[in-house]
Amino acid sequence: MARINDHYRKLTAGYLFPEIARRVDHWQQAHPDRAGRIIRCGIGDVTEPLPAAVRAAMHRAIDEMGDRATFRGYGPPTGYDFLRRAIAEGDFAPRGVNVDPDEIFISDGSKTDCGAILDILACGPADGGRANRIGITDPVYPVYVDTNVMAGNTGPAGPDGRYAGLVYLDATVENGFTPPPPDGPLDVVYLCYPNNPTGGMIDRAGLEAWVAWARRHDALILYDVAYRDFIRDPARPHSIYEIDGARTCAIEFHSFSKNGGFTGVRCGYTVCPRDVAGRSADGSHVPLHPLWTRRWSTKSNNVAYVVQRGAEALYSPEGRAQTAALIDHYMGNARRLIDGLRDAGFTVHGGEHAPYVWVECPPGTGSWATFDRLLDEVQVVVTPGAGFGRCGEGFFRVSAFNSRANVDAVVNRLSAMSTVRA
Amino acid sequence: MARINDHYRKLTAGYLFPEIARRVDHWQQAHPDRAGRIIRCGIGDVTEPLPAAVRAAMHRAIDEMGDRATFRGYGPPTGYDFLRRAIAEGDFAPRGVNVDPDEIFISDGSKTDCGAILDILACGPADGGRANRIGITDPVYPVYVDTNVMAGNTGPAGPDGRYAGLVYLDATVENGFTPPPPDGPLDVVYLCYPNNPTGGMIDRAGLEAWVAWARRHDALILYDVAYRDFIRDPARPHSIYEIDGARTCAIEFHSFSKNGGFTGVRCGYTVCPRDVAGRSADGSHVPLHPLWTRRWSTKSNNVAYVVQRGAEALYSPEGRAQTAALIDHYMGNARRLIDGLRDAGFTVHGGEHAPYVWVECPPGTGSWATFDRLLDEVQVVVTPGAGFGRCGEGFFRVSAFNSRANVDAVVNRLSAMSTVRA
Repeated sequence: MARINDHYRKLTAGYLFPEIARRVDHWQQAHPDRAGRIIRCGIGDVTEPLPAAVRAAMHRAIDEMGDRATFRGYGPPTGYDFLRRAIAEGDFAPRGVNVDPDEIFISDGSKTDCGAILDILACGPADGGRANRIGITDPVYPVYVDTNVMAGNTGPAGPDGRYAGLVYLDATVENGFTPPPPDGPLDVVYLCYPNNPTGGMIDRAGLEAWVAWARRHDALILYDVAYRDFIRDPARPHSIYEIDGARTCAIEFHSFSKNGGFTGVRCGYTVCPRDVAGRSADGSHVPLHPLWTRRWSTKSNNVAYVVQRGAEALYSPEGRAQTAALIDHYMGNARRLIDGLRDAGFTVHGGEHAPYVWVECPPGTGSWATFDRLLDEVQVVVTPGAGFGRCGEGFFRVSAFNSRANVDAVVNRLSAMSTVRA
Repeated sequence: MARINDHYRKLTAGYLFPEIARRVDHWQQAHPDRAGRIIRCGIGDVTEPLPAAVRAAMHRAIDEMGDRATFRGYGPPTGYDFLRRAIAEGDFAPRGVNVDPDEIFISDGSKTDCGAILDILACGPADGGRANRIGITDPVYPVYVDTNVMAGNTGPAGPDGRYAGLVYLDATVENGFTPPPPDGPLDVVYLCYPNNPTGGMIDRAGLEAWVAWARRHDALILYDVAYRDFIRDPARPHSIYEIDGARTCAIEFHSFSKNGGFTGVRCGYTVCPRDVAGRSADGSHVPLHPLWTRRWSTKSNNVAYVVQRGAEALYSPEGRAQTAALIDHYMGNARRLIDGLRDAGFTVHGGEHAPYVWVECPPGTGSWATFDRLLDEVQVVVTPGAGFGRCGEGFFRVSAFNSRANVDAVVNRLSAMSTVRA
């Protein structure tokens, strides 16, 4: 009989967002009279229309598919050159970063890639040096953790939800939600800036410290910049490759979900520089670029031509202007959330360079209890911080992805709940 | 330092189709004067325009994305209900098969799923009962083999290209390219009918024998029906679930690539019945459906809304008629290839229920040598049978995915090569 992947059985609960959806559904069924009042600030899903430039490009691409002369079948396994060039010239060259189009791998989103990258790394417990010592920040995007559990890189979860075998780096109020590198070595570390869920953002000196640490310990940094375009300060690093030496120690994950409104379109990309290598069982250094190429060639046919043309349009002058307007809208929401919730007495973090506001729960109230209470009393769906890890307990995340009217309503409703203030 | 997945280093060569592309590029650069003469019958890529019904649905979906009221962000992790229902009602109900929409998992293609399914199965060598004894037919779609190599389910390749630890089931002229079940047990077997690459097609009795064998040995059949719509005989099984008992022992992979012309659109689906289970390390039976659901929830955000609306349109009356016309066109090509190549003296198999014609090489000529010769002498790109496994040696595959004019030219050019005939 087929043996299953028993590591799945270590997963402690449903993935966070399905669990939230389940609780909301349950509440709605119990309260049909108030179900329509719900405002969702939970999952970080965009709400505004897909930019016109993207839609126009997708329409054109569909028309091309209707003509035998311009029809496109299988595309290149790592993405079309037109998109990879647009990315290299649009995202990296303006900031003085040299990334070759060939180092850019198109995908259906950074969620996919953050999990898939484990395909090319050794899996299993790190004991005895057979596999990798893996570090994650806490709180953290659950995908980093859960995909490592599935790959067999952890032991079971403890009572606090932490998995044996992972090294947790606490992101706290005290360190500004940007934990420094650990004293000792690790093999792989996940970093995400601007951060999901805390909304924290690293500065240049902080990222330089991580790159220096990685080079000292021959570690690989998996750097997730899905929220890059929300950085309001041009001096902050928009890519880890702005730091000297990062090309030898970092893979970077990008998404069009939040800047281009692509959560339902599905496209992103990963940068795997030719200079980054891992270690084989025989001790030799093996570049990761050919492994990642092989992974894509064998396990995927990449992303729809129509979608890739849509993503390319984000780099046109119209696409840039429309994207900037989207980001201004969401960051305007973040500003209103910060100001409004502070005025209401909440202690608020994040939201300066990220579309997430990280709010402290009322003293003595856990984050799931706060989640349930906000849902039940004012019909606002947030994300409980504890869903992102032990250090998220005592916080909840409010997403700025919403209409202005909804954001204002959220502020008003939470302000009216005097008893939940800190 | 990050340890790599050393199993990748066992892979013997580039994935087949990139290797073909490399040889073709090389020849074209050496012969620029004749480069334009090349006709490609190698990779099984469709050539005809995307059906009008699909394009219309995708245009409408893009317009929806432009309106805040109808914009779609993150979709359900296993696909939209509208598409899953259309599939259940369109592909299964008419043949008397009861598949619940909830058992249908939308994906970006069956290539992806054929690899991803290993995520939920135990990986590693089968020795000692720790993982799975895996059977594949030979010749075979390379993805089945290579993804098992990557997952660590094999040892190294031998001189004949076969990987230690896999069980190969020979598909030969003698067994009509439909090898029977082995005498002994296996845990997982990949089957593909209509077959890629041989074009062979199993009959009902043959598939019943496989299901009976799987139930006797508690094996899991991974059944790939990417070419289902090319079956010309309604009595042949279009789904393994037409066989009693298959719901407990089979997962089925479907694609819109070849019937709907979706090779560049990327959509397919996998059926994982609620009744199919695997075995845990503790001996307990574990249903695979929740594991596969969890895999999708954690590692993907599924497929573009626009693409899913396009796929749904394949089930509309217009979509069905347009798909049927596409298939008739390609199967008309297959008929001409069979007749033309037979007239020219070739021994030809397949092509009756599949868009692939499986041709015997001239005696004493290997399939890569025949590939090179066809490229060099008549500028026809085929797929060398040896690229699909040891039993593919001595054959080449001709794809019927082409224009009628190109198919006629291929027949004429090969007919003129009297010395390559068997």
